[in-house]
Amino acid sequence: MNVFSNCVQDDYFYLMSEAREKRILEVQSNRQRDLTVVLENVWDPHNISAVLRSCDAVGIQEVFILSTHSQKVSKLGKKSSAGAAKWLTIHHYFDLHECFEVLRNKYSRIYSTRLAEKVYSVYDIDLTQSVALVFGNEKDGVSPEAANLSDGNFSIPQIGMISSLNISVACAVTLYECYRQRSAKGLYAKNVESNL
Amino acid sequence: MNVFSNCVQDDYFYLMSEAREKRILEVQSNRQRDLTVVLENVWDPHNISAVLRSCDAVGIQEVFILSTHSQKVSKLGKKSSAGAAKWLTIHHYFDLHECFEVLRNKYSRIYSTRLAEKVYSVYDIDLTQSVALVFGNEKDGVSPEAANLSDGNFSIPQIGMISSLNISVACAVTLYECYRQRSAKGLYAKNVESNL
Repeated sequence: MNVFSNCVQDDYFYLMSEAREKRILEVQSNRQRDLTVVLENVWDPHNISAVLRSCDAVGIQEVFILSTHSQKVSKLGKKSSAGAAKWLTIHHYFDLHECFEVLRNKYSRIYSTRLAEKVYSVYDIDLTQSVALVFGNEKDGVSPEAANLSDGNFSIPQIGMISSLNISVACAVTLYECYRQRSAKGLYAKNVESNL
Repeated sequence: MNVFSNCVQDDYFYLMSEAREKRILEVQSNRQRDLTVVLENVWDPHNISAVLRSCDAVGIQEVFILSTHSQKVSKLGKKSSAGAAKWLTIHHYFDLHECFEVLRNKYSRIYSTRLAEKVYSVYDIDLTQSVALVFGNEKDGVSPEAANLSDGNFSIPQIGMISSLNISVACAVTLYECYRQRSAKGLYAKNVESNL
């Protein structure tokens, strides 16, 4: 047995552990407790996974997965969610009203992505307030019932020939607008070590 | 033969055609000729398709697809690109220097997404100037050669436990920051009918 190499190994693990603990504390200190994402009947595991990665990336801790058409818990993509999902708090709901009651108690505003007559641009909403953002599924978008229970609808401007951004792309663009607004307002701790 | 119904049909088609022509002219008037995306060795057709949809959505007309490891033209995902690709001008290159020479002649700045020592946040770059934005592949990112030929590197802040956004998500977030900055500066025509 090589005692020296064991010592080095132990030190190495100790240092790793300390760095990891620091990293976890930093990430936790930047979690935005008053910001959440609700996925209504989103089925594609790859899309759910991509959304979870975006949530983790901008500091969202709690995610609501609402499945009103099935009593089965939505599957998460194995590959990409494995990392993100284990760091998030994921709530599964099967009843719309039950889910929205919880949202109402925890967040000041609920906004849905929906192409309705009265719809705001995502850039015109104050995303620094306490808010839950509802995204619908790939085919039908947010249901009329969920939209009716919300405080307003918003959309991402599209000025091209095609008007259909993927749900994971739409969600990421929205969440990074949250990040930009919140960052500008100093809502993230200054000691954060981002990957920049 | 019902003459009346034929008239109605003709009028309908005429009106449709006029509306479509108007739509195309509006979209064209909002195309940002001094903004482009370069995909270096991005292979996944789904990712390329998603990027093309984001390009179309924010008004990018020209896209450069650079494949230095193969002489085969990268495949575009059938499903989602069919719509976007036909409205874009896609340039395929197989030689890095040839591609960058063209970029240098057409755009004032070239920025690469790369995690290097000197890297800007996407939110700290002036994206209203004439600029080409280079994105690398899913595994290795932008090559050191491409980064060396660029004017700087940028990244999207990530403050979560996982640090790896999908290429299509990273590209969409960047392009919508371009949209936000350019929109605020009035670089889009005011008569645009977005989907808001």
